[in-house]
Amino acid sequence: MLVRRNLKWSVIAHYTWKSMLYYTLLAIAVFLLHDHFEVLKLHLPFSTITALSTALAIFLGFKNSNAYERWWEARQIWGQLVNSSRAWSRQVVTMIIPEESHEAQMVKELQERLVYRHMAFVHGLRVFLRKPKQYNETRQEEIYEETNEYSDTMAFLSPNEYKIFCQKNNPPNYLLNLQGDDLRRAYDRGWLSDYRFVQLEQTLVEFNNVQGRSERIKNTPFPRQYSFFSRVFVFIHASLLPFVFVEEIGWASMPVSVIISFVFLCLDLVGERMEDPFENRLEDVPLTSMSLGIETNLKEHWGDKNFPASKDMSKGIVL
Amino acid sequence: MLVRRNLKWSVIAHYTWKSMLYYTLLAIAVFLLHDHFEVLKLHLPFSTITALSTALAIFLGFKNSNAYERWWEARQIWGQLVNSSRAWSRQVVTMIIPEESHEAQMVKELQERLVYRHMAFVHGLRVFLRKPKQYNETRQEEIYEETNEYSDTMAFLSPNEYKIFCQKNNPPNYLLNLQGDDLRRAYDRGWLSDYRFVQLEQTLVEFNNVQGRSERIKNTPFPRQYSFFSRVFVFIHASLLPFVFVEEIGWASMPVSVIISFVFLCLDLVGERMEDPFENRLEDVPLTSMSLGIETNLKEHWGDKNFPASKDMSKGIVL
Amino acid sequence: MLVRRNLKWSVIAHYTWKSMLYYTLLAIAVFLLHDHFEVLKLHLPFSTITALSTALAIFLGFKNSNAYERWWEARQIWGQLVNSSRAWSRQVVTMIIPEESHEAQMVKELQERLVYRHMAFVHGLRVFLRKPKQYNETRQEEIYEETNEYSDTMAFLSPNEYKIFCQKNNPPNYLLNLQGDDLRRAYDRGWLSDYRFVQLEQTLVEFNNVQGRSERIKNTPFPRQYSFFSRVFVFIHASLLPFVFVEEIGWASMPVSVIISFVFLCLDLVGERMEDPFENRLEDVPLTSMSLGIETNLKEHWGDKNFPASKDMSKGIVL
Amino acid sequence: MLVRRNLKWSVIAHYTWKSMLYYTLLAIAVFLLHDHFEVLKLHLPFSTITALSTALAIFLGFKNSNAYERWWEARQIWGQLVNSSRAWSRQVVTMIIPEESHEAQMVKELQERLVYRHMAFVHGLRVFLRKPKQYNETRQEEIYEETNEYSDTMAFLSPNEYKIFCQKNNPPNYLLNLQGDDLRRAYDRGWLSDYRFVQLEQTLVEFNNVQGRSERIKNTPFPRQYSFFSRVFVFIHASLLPFVFVEEIGWASMPVSVIISFVFLCLDLVGERMEDPFENRLEDVPLTSMSLGIETNLKEHWGDKNFPASKDMSKGIVL
Amino acid sequence: MLVRRNLKWSVIAHYTWKSMLYYTLLAIAVFLLHDHFEVLKLHLPFSTITALSTALAIFLGFKNSNAYERWWEARQIWGQLVNSSRAWSRQVVTMIIPEESHEAQMVKELQERLVYRHMAFVHGLRVFLRKPKQYNETRQEEIYEETNEYSDTMAFLSPNEYKIFCQKNNPPNYLLNLQGDDLRRAYDRGWLSDYRFVQLEQTLVEFNNVQGRSERIKNTPFPRQYSFFSRVFVFIHASLLPFVFVEEIGWASMPVSVIISFVFLCLDLVGERMEDPFENRLEDVPLTSMSLGIETNLKEHWGDKNFPASKDMSKGIVL
Repeated sequence: MLVRRNLKWSVIAHYTWKSMLYYTLLAIAVFLLHDHFEVLKLHLPFSTITALSTALAIFLGFKNSNAYERWWEARQIWGQLVNSSRAWSRQVVTMIIPEESHEAQMVKELQERLVYRHMAFVHGLRVFLRKPKQYNETRQEEIYEETNEYSDTMAFLSPNEYKIFCQKNNPPNYLLNLQGDDLRRAYDRGWLSDYRFVQLEQTLVEFNNVQGRSERIKNTPFPRQYSFFSRVFVFIHASLLPFVFVEEIGWASMPVSVIISFVFLCLDLVGERMEDPFENRLEDVPLTSMSLGIETNLKEHWGDKNFPASKDMSKGIVL
Repeated sequence: MLVRRNLKWSVIAHYTWKSMLYYTLLAIAVFLLHDHFEVLKLHLPFSTITALSTALAIFLGFKNSNAYERWWEARQIWGQLVNSSRAWSRQVVTMIIPEESHEAQMVKELQERLVYRHMAFVHGLRVFLRKPKQYNETRQEEIYEETNEYSDTMAFLSPNEYKIFCQKNNPPNYLLNLQGDDLRRAYDRGWLSDYRFVQLEQTLVEFNNVQGRSERIKNTPFPRQYSFFSRVFVFIHASLLPFVFVEEIGWASMPVSVIISFVFLCLDLVGERMEDPFENRLEDVPLTSMSLGIETNLKEHWGDKNFPASKDMSKGIVL
Repeated sequence: MLVRRNLKWSVIAHYTWKSMLYYTLLAIAVFLLHDHFEVLKLHLPFSTITALSTALAIFLGFKNSNAYERWWEARQIWGQLVNSSRAWSRQVVTMIIPEESHEAQMVKELQERLVYRHMAFVHGLRVFLRKPKQYNETRQEEIYEETNEYSDTMAFLSPNEYKIFCQKNNPPNYLLNLQGDDLRRAYDRGWLSDYRFVQLEQTLVEFNNVQGRSERIKNTPFPRQYSFFSRVFVFIHASLLPFVFVEEIGWASMPVSVIISFVFLCLDLVGERMEDPFENRLEDVPLTSMSLGIETNLKEHWGDKNFPASKDMSKGIVL
Repeated sequence: MLVRRNLKWSVIAHYTWKSMLYYTLLAIAVFLLHDHFEVLKLHLPFSTITALSTALAIFLGFKNSNAYERWWEARQIWGQLVNSSRAWSRQVVTMIIPEESHEAQMVKELQERLVYRHMAFVHGLRVFLRKPKQYNETRQEEIYEETNEYSDTMAFLSPNEYKIFCQKNNPPNYLLNLQGDDLRRAYDRGWLSDYRFVQLEQTLVEFNNVQGRSERIKNTPFPRQYSFFSRVFVFIHASLLPFVFVEEIGWASMPVSVIISFVFLCLDLVGERMEDPFENRLEDVPLTSMSLGIETNLKEHWGDKNFPASKDMSKGIVL
Repeated sequence: MLVRRNLKWSVIAHYTWKSMLYYTLLAIAVFLLHDHFEVLKLHLPFSTITALSTALAIFLGFKNSNAYERWWEARQIWGQLVNSSRAWSRQVVTMIIPEESHEAQMVKELQERLVYRHMAFVHGLRVFLRKPKQYNETRQEEIYEETNEYSDTMAFLSPNEYKIFCQKNNPPNYLLNLQGDDLRRAYDRGWLSDYRFVQLEQTLVEFNNVQGRSERIKNTPFPRQYSFFSRVFVFIHASLLPFVFVEEIGWASMPVSVIISFVFLCLDLVGERMEDPFENRLEDVPLTSMSLGIETNLKEHWGDKNFPASKDMSKGIVL
């Protein structure tokens, strides 16, 4: 996630230079062929592409809206994870109650296991979501990336759990099932009443929902039809622009058509890159930062002072 | 669902060639009649259809938004099915508790039945939703299709249940009622408390909602009025275009009017085909893939290593 | 609800002929006065109404969106009724449990009463919602209509209940209160625990919500201000069109202005008629079909083979 | 709320005459100065304000959408009040159960108090919401108004409660707290189990939400920035129009610019007046009518035949 | 939050003068260079930037919609806090019940602690949210500001609690955990049943959600990409306008291009400033006013007459 108010032009250039080069060369070529060599006799009044421009602007508006909604929904889901994590921690501490006083220590250990394993779930889900999907790969080289390894969860799990965790088809779901097993054990011991057992289990269902909803956004790209056609239409529109301007405004057609093409290109590209919020790149929902925030909240509640270091934001990027 | 970033032009041609042929022939005819034979004396300035173009662009934006929302809601519903299925599996295992130790085996059998019958529900619902509706049929030949038979559920049901299942008016609902009966039996035996009984029953209500919401989208097409008029308006617009361009830009009217018509056609067609997400075709919500995912998650939790093979994605399509 | 992919032009003509006649006569009159009699010296360039066209297109987009949203919400509400009805039927059967074996028959009778009275609720709510409101009446003659009588519920109620039901100010609500009384009776007998009692009562609250939400849409028309002004603006726009075209494009102004007016008229009319989904006409949410579907589901679950005949869809309409 | 399909032109004139007068005088002045006295030499082609018109149309679309959403949300909130009121009445009757038979009369009295005090809550909330806020006042004189006095609740409260009620900072909230106290009393007596106590309390939370959500809309006007600038932009646009038209279309510039200004004015004004749904005026959400509806439903359930008279709708207005 | 219907022009000037100055100077420069010195020979017809204007208007519409949605969601979240606070107060009073009569005083003290600590939570959350984020700072000087110190909560906490509260990484969350501990204590004493304990805990989860959702909006700015490009496009558009107008309308190009630029600037700026609702400035969601409102409601319920003074609204601003 970008947090600097102003984007760097070098970053913008990194992602747009290929298209900009094409626009510029085309504009120059059309101008030369028309005014200099007088080869091109094409006469296209501007109204020719008015319809196209309006339709394209509306279509890009639609794309941007939905790209933003996907991104914002991803942020909401992880916001819900923050809220439920804090509630989980409090509920584990207040609701699991030893039947007899000599069990106090065992209850405490169980509570600690439930709280720390939850931190593992949060970090594990982050890594799981950011694993690259083959069909989401592009040839675009990225500027910033985070490390993304399951080993971040090692500190919060027993060695044995960690080993099995890494082998699972769906590792985060495995942790939720472990949490369920521990709740059942607490119930069998009488540390949870029927009712409190089910309440804690409901909070686990909340985590199921968080995970499943994140997977939905990760696994279901914004329909390729829309993305593809918006790219094609921007290309068509940009390719027609120099022809439209060259007759009426002469050499000014070069800067003007490049500027207008640039605007439409940006509208398309900004949406394109917001669409997928879990790709481990510049515009991602800041999962790393949020995971560390949850870890901090839970440790503060548990009385563990060993807070993780917060990430450097000096570059205006939070990942 | 398409996952390849770029659509193949052969696929686009498959779905648009008829309209494109009409646009091309019309543009040629208008040009010849006007410039060559000088028969046509019609003089339509471009502004004639500006109002139409804008209104059409807005209307297609409206259509695309709602088509996408239908599709995305379908995906959300099935995402909810994934989440609740995982929760169901965990709850069945942790919440159904034998009263006495000798019942452990019977409880285990019951749990297995509840988990595997749920897989049958998922596969059965998929098949049920993809059964073609007579009024949704078009003359358009499709490129890709999945098999769609209730026999996919056979492995998860007892032979007797499967037989009755196939005869029901609403087969998936029958399975939910069977689940309810089994919960009641567990309650009668004392394996479920009053409270846990109702909680599991609530998860069944969740499945009722998933099924009913999917049926809503399947059985209620996007209002035909909107679809029909958008097709008609695109046709009117495309038919007027060559007349508008021919006087001012001569032979260039042919490529230009075909290109602009193509853009509007695509905007219409993309929406038209996203509208119905359960039609067993290219753009479907990937029910097959999701059903197999749920099956894998539940088997992994139950300790069954016999995972289903995942589908081939090499063609850039997930069904 | 229309389900045929293509509307019949005869149906379209039935609802638009008056306006179309006005547009045509106006266009002819303007053309004759201008070109033939040369009386009219008005010179309006097209740009005169560009602002109007764009504003109108956006306003109609707004109207269509909200009309569709009202309709779709109505469909969602009734979809929720389908889901909750299935859940109600299953819960009644699994959760009301005789305390002693000799009560089994009485419990069964109570369950039957609760399930069949619910069918009466569904049919009764449909009839209640489709009763015409005086201020919704128009002079427009409708092509299709359903019968709409409370007698459809007679088969599912005791004669006495049916008699009182018909006299009530709010008949469907009366049935929900009866259901509540029966639950209380079951509780008093010990067939329901405290907890299961409240759960079934919650499902009744769901039905309260379904009814109240449907009444909201029925009793609160889309703000008349918006509908009225959109009709007025379409009329103003259509009345200006011939003047704008007549000078520049001569006789072609007649077909062109009629076609463009037709497009705007349709955009307005389609929204206007979708707004009110419970008016017992062509575009209604298919309450009859859905009520029969619920009846079928509940009877199938109860083991009653006497399914209602499904409605004829051959005309491409589901009511 | 307006329910007549067509607005009266006298009503429209009442709210627009000042602006219309300005538009007309300005158009005449510009025409005379330009064509008659030939003082004004300004030459503004129409395209000058194309950008402004489009931006304004989109901005008004945004304003209208959100004004309508505020209004519709207000209607939904009160719809929820209808639903929950019916549920409250049923739950009070079926769930508060005397422990011993001699308490039956006392329980009945308590139930009556809870049901009638709820009617007081509904009427009281209506009056509370419609109290004018100083900063919402305008100099616009309104055509229709309802009486709005707390005395409407007197019939449903004991004299003592009514007296305190009137002195409270937040009177409706006071009634909810009284309901809570009565539930607690019933619990202490054993007429409510732990579980049923909490369920009824949950319905009170629903009423808290209804009240708080209504207050949110009442106390938070649609951001003044948006309203203010839309008024300013409509004024700028209307002031430029005559200059734009006068050169090209002569005397026709007067009617045309007035008509177009009228359309934009209406788009602005309709939104402006929908924004605030609790102002006791023409376009309000019909709180009075809904309060009486709830009173009727609850009295019908309680067996009280003394229904309130329903309001006269003959003028096409429901308040 | 602004509540005055009309903004002061001095306030508008405060925030726009820099841009307005640039627009004016540019327009004058272009006019002089073109008409006076005849240096500039650029000929740009208006249609040159039509495409840009439309695309920009749509993009600003998108930005304004989402800025408003963020603001309105913030208001909804705090509205939910109002509702749940009232419910919390009532539930604490009615649901915590002494087991034996001599405990009545202790219960009362506990209830008071729970109610007053909640007021501390509300004020503390307000202060926490309004703490400035480094990357949200701008060089824009603000006109109005509220004090924002944790000391506002001192009156509602014990000295010891207040001291720890101030040192916490996440102070409001600490208070919720204290509330949880007190509930647990009440449960241990038998003043809360299992069921009522969990219900009160659920209300705490509601507060977790309120806090987490507010933090989401605070910590996640509206994507900088969108804000940045809208500012850039408004700048490009405004810079092209004088060139477009100068040839066709001469000296009038100066006022016209400044006016049109002003409109687009306002559309951009209004959205830009609504985006972040917790920045302690003019357009904020009125957290201070709402906190005082909650304090008043809770004190009224508890019988404490010591209401806080309400804020002065005479300047038309509520903070």
